[in-house]
Amino acid sequence: MAYITLPIAEQLGREFPGIVGPMTFRPETAAPINDLVNILLRGESTLTPGERELIATHVSWRNDCFFCQTIHGAVAAAQLGHDEQLVQTVKTDWINADISPKMKALLNIAGKVQIGGKQVIEDDVAAARAEGATDLEIHDTVLIAAVFCMCNRYVDGLNTWAPTEMNIYRANAAQIVARGYSAVTETAIAKASR
Amino acid sequence: MAYITLPIAEQLGREFPGIVGPMTFRPETAAPINDLVNILLRGESTLTPGERELIATHVSWRNDCFFCQTIHGAVAAAQLGHDEQLVQTVKTDWINADISPKMKALLNIAGKVQIGGKQVIEDDVAAARAEGATDLEIHDTVLIAAVFCMCNRYVDGLNTWAPTEMNIYRANAAQIVARGYSAVTETAIAKASR
Repeated sequence: MAYITLPIAEQLGREFPGIVGPMTFRPETAAPINDLVNILLRGESTLTPGERELIATHVSWRNDCFFCQTIHGAVAAAQLGHDEQLVQTVKTDWINADISPKMKALLNIAGKVQIGGKQVIEDDVAAARAEGATDLEIHDTVLIAAVFCMCNRYVDGLNTWAPTEMNIYRANAAQIVARGYSAVTETAIAKASR
Repeated sequence: MAYITLPIAEQLGREFPGIVGPMTFRPETAAPINDLVNILLRGESTLTPGERELIATHVSWRNDCFFCQTIHGAVAAAQLGHDEQLVQTVKTDWINADISPKMKALLNIAGKVQIGGKQVIEDDVAAARAEGATDLEIHDTVLIAAVFCMCNRYVDGLNTWAPTEMNIYRANAAQIVARGYSAVTETAIAKASR
């Protein structure tokens, strides 16, 4: 049970899962959070949407946030040829994952941001640059990691509900890939009864 | 030196301090971050702006982010009768600070969110409720704490510059109190040369 009383999703007979629950409770703050996530994960970038979702998934796994690591892992898989094994490896053993050296250098930075901003040292950034990472890619990696340190705390600090059935996440991921984070959340907000 | 090349503030001859630096580098993501902070810290609420700034300051102190704890501490002081000693006590010894029992219960929750979302337990929320905290106040406390876990990591993960002179923060705080976070940042973005 979430720590605060959240709106009910009529089709579920209970609150919406994960971050969508408090977002239906407080649509004013949901809008900029979704805008930020949409720009970072789905906006124009030299990193693919799948690569950016892997960064979000890895950080959420490090923060032990079941909902976020599962939904963003499902979105990443949907964008990477439905390769759920790759997503799993990026969570737990990224150094040996079948991803580019640049992505490994960026995941190293993201993992340090998860611990704390000061953990990132000049050598980490130099290593990413040596693999071809640009200033914008380094910036966005730091900010994606930071944003998920926010989202993970929002989801777990309010003790929100997370379904355990993977097919629910796969179906929601397909919606997110097709429509984006803002649109999917706005639909939930419209359907929430208070 | 910041880890990426940031726009230069002409009047300073170097990049803008703290979070304003990367915000001038990436105005697209600056806009929703500022919207979110404006709603949470300056929007309609049964917590005063000063109380909300104290939550932001305490979390930023816990994350050892010099820029954020100093600017939000200066904004809090400006909104609380210029009581800089109170702000200092809320950083380091909040349990003995001259604040309401409700604020102490909310700072306890915020401090746990800083460690990780799962640190918040039902008893923490019950204690806040016993002091009169509403669902919205509990929600906003968790989200403010989470947002500053993001901002602190963004500022320090990119190794941004922070001035050490307190009068700079006092002057910037007066601008923020008068005009809000979005407006102050938009002015900086307009003045940044790339």
